[in-house]
Amino acid sequence: MADFPAPGFTGSPLVRIDIERDNQPYFDTALANPKSRLLRLDGLSPVIGDDGGLSWGSLAEADPEAPLALLGLIDDAPRFVSLSRIEKGGPDPRMAMIQRCAGMPAGDAGTYAAARSLVDWHDRHSFCPNCGRLTTIMRSGWARFCLKDEGGCGTEHFPRTDPVVIMLAEYNHKVLVGRNRHSMQGKFYSALAGFLEVGESIEDAVARELFEEAGVIVKSVRYITSQPWPMPSQLMMACIAPVESDELNLDENELNDAIWCDRDEVRAALAGEDWARFHMRFPLAIAYTLLTAWVNGA
Amino acid sequence: MADFPAPGFTGSPLVRIDIERDNQPYFDTALANPKSRLLRLDGLSPVIGDDGGLSWGSLAEADPEAPLALLGLIDDAPRFVSLSRIEKGGPDPRMAMIQRCAGMPAGDAGTYAAARSLVDWHDRHSFCPNCGRLTTIMRSGWARFCLKDEGGCGTEHFPRTDPVVIMLAEYNHKVLVGRNRHSMQGKFYSALAGFLEVGESIEDAVARELFEEAGVIVKSVRYITSQPWPMPSQLMMACIAPVESDELNLDENELNDAIWCDRDEVRAALAGEDWARFHMRFPLAIAYTLLTAWVNGA
Repeated sequence: MADFPAPGFTGSPLVRIDIERDNQPYFDTALANPKSRLLRLDGLSPVIGDDGGLSWGSLAEADPEAPLALLGLIDDAPRFVSLSRIEKGGPDPRMAMIQRCAGMPAGDAGTYAAARSLVDWHDRHSFCPNCGRLTTIMRSGWARFCLKDEGGCGTEHFPRTDPVVIMLAEYNHKVLVGRNRHSMQGKFYSALAGFLEVGESIEDAVARELFEEAGVIVKSVRYITSQPWPMPSQLMMACIAPVESDELNLDENELNDAIWCDRDEVRAALAGEDWARFHMRFPLAIAYTLLTAWVNGA
Repeated sequence: MADFPAPGFTGSPLVRIDIERDNQPYFDTALANPKSRLLRLDGLSPVIGDDGGLSWGSLAEADPEAPLALLGLIDDAPRFVSLSRIEKGGPDPRMAMIQRCAGMPAGDAGTYAAARSLVDWHDRHSFCPNCGRLTTIMRSGWARFCLKDEGGCGTEHFPRTDPVVIMLAEYNHKVLVGRNRHSMQGKFYSALAGFLEVGESIEDAVARELFEEAGVIVKSVRYITSQPWPMPSQLMMACIAPVESDELNLDENELNDAIWCDRDEVRAALAGEDWARFHMRFPLAIAYTLLTAWVNGA
C-alpha cells in the first residue's frame, strides 16, 4: 500500500454516540451540562477560533428559536449545533469555506463537515417527500419523522449522503486529468468524477463515468481511499482504473480538455511548480490525495 | 488481489446514456422505436421470463396512467420501466424478491436493481422536501424538479443512494461475524454493517460501526468490493479491518451474538455444511463475497 496523507475532512475526534440519540433524558442532561459546547457557525461557514481551529461557545449563545442537534462528544464534552434556517441569496460562500477549512487542524475540518451537512440537510428537508407535510426533528437532531399522531404518513427520514466516484484512468504509466468546461481560465485540472447512480457498484460507476466523459474502457478498478465533502453532503470515493487505450473521446458537455501525465508531471503539479503541466485547486480535495497516492506507487 | 466472484446485483449490461436524459426528442424517438421494451414488474418484484431472467414486454403493456422512465439501452434497444404507484400494506415481498434475483443471470439482477430503486424512489418522493409542493418528473425519469413556473421553489431532486459499510473485524487469522438481534432462530450470522453518516469517510464509518457494535478498535481498513442493494437503494461497501484485540463488548440493541471464525470455519459456512459454526442467508449479499474474498487471501 502506497503512503499518502489522510484525505481532507477525515479524522474527526467526534464520538457520535448513536446509541443515545433516541434517549431524551440523555439529550436533556447534555443540554444542562456546563461542559457542553455550541459550534459557532456564520451561516454555513465555520467561525475560526484563536488557535486557527473551530470556535466553540456556550449553549447560551444559541438562537432560542432554533432547535439544537447533539453532534456527539469531543473530549467527553457534549457538542451541539444550532439548526437555524440559512439565509439564501448571498454570494456562494463555498470558496471562502474551503479556504477556512484548509487552515484548520485536520480533525476540526471533519467535525465541521458533519455539522455543516447536518444543518444544511435540515434546512432543505423540512417537508416529507412522501406526503408533503411538515416533519418533526427527532433522534437528537439526526432524523426527521413524518409523525402519524400529527397527521403525517409515518415515514422516517435521515440525512442524505450522495456517493461520488472520483478516479484516474491509468495507461502506460500515465494518468488522465481533465479540465471542467465550467472551470475558470487557467490550468486547473483534476481527476474525473461523477455521481454514482442507483443500481451501480463503485466499480460500475467508475467504468461508466470514464467511458461517458473520456471514451476510455476500464479493465479493472483499484479503490484507494475516501472522504466526506460537505457541499452539501457527498461521499467521495477515489479509485485508479487501468484502461484499454489512451485514445480519448471527450464529452464536451463536461470537459474542455484532458491530458495524460506521467509521475514527474503529476509531482510538479502537486508541488505547485509554475512550470507544471497543470495546477490543482484544493489540497483539501481527495483528488490531491489520489494523485499523491499514485505518484507514491498506489 | 484475492479472487472472488462478482457481487450480486453487479454487471448489468444496461448502458445508461445519461447524456441524452435531458433530450426530449431522444426520449420520444425511443418511445416510438419498435425495438423498445418494457421491464415487467409485479409491484416492485421482478417477473421471471422463460429463460429464468427478467421478462420484457412491449410498451403497449404499460399502464397508460403512469409515466415511463427510460432506463437506458440493452443490445441497442431502449429499455423502459413504468413509474406506477406501488400498493402498500401487503406482506413484505423482499424475501421472495431476493429468491427470484438469486436465480437470474447476474446482469439481469443488476438491471432489476437499477429499475427497482428508481421506481421505488419516485413512489416515495412525489413532494419537494424543501417546500412541500408536488414535483415534476424530469430527465427521462431520472429526476424530479420543483418547477418555479409551476409555483415551486426551483430545487432539483435526484434518486437517493444510501452508503452502507459492511465489514469483517480481523484478529489473529480470524474474522468476526454477528447474529442480528432481530434474526430468526438458527445460526444465521453475517458481517457487521451500518449506514455511513454525513461527515464520515468509508474508513471512519467502518471504525465507528465496529466500535459501536462490537467494542473493537480498528487499526486499518482494507476496501474489498461493493454492490448496490435495491431494498430500497443502498450502496454496500465491503471492507476488512484488522483490530487491536479480540475482546468484545456487544451492543445488545443490534447483536445477540458474535463469534470469531478461522478460514476453515468460514469455508464450511460458505459451503453450507450442516456442521458449520454459522449459516449464511443470501449468496446474493455482499457478505458472501466478502467472506469468500477473505478465505481466498484478501
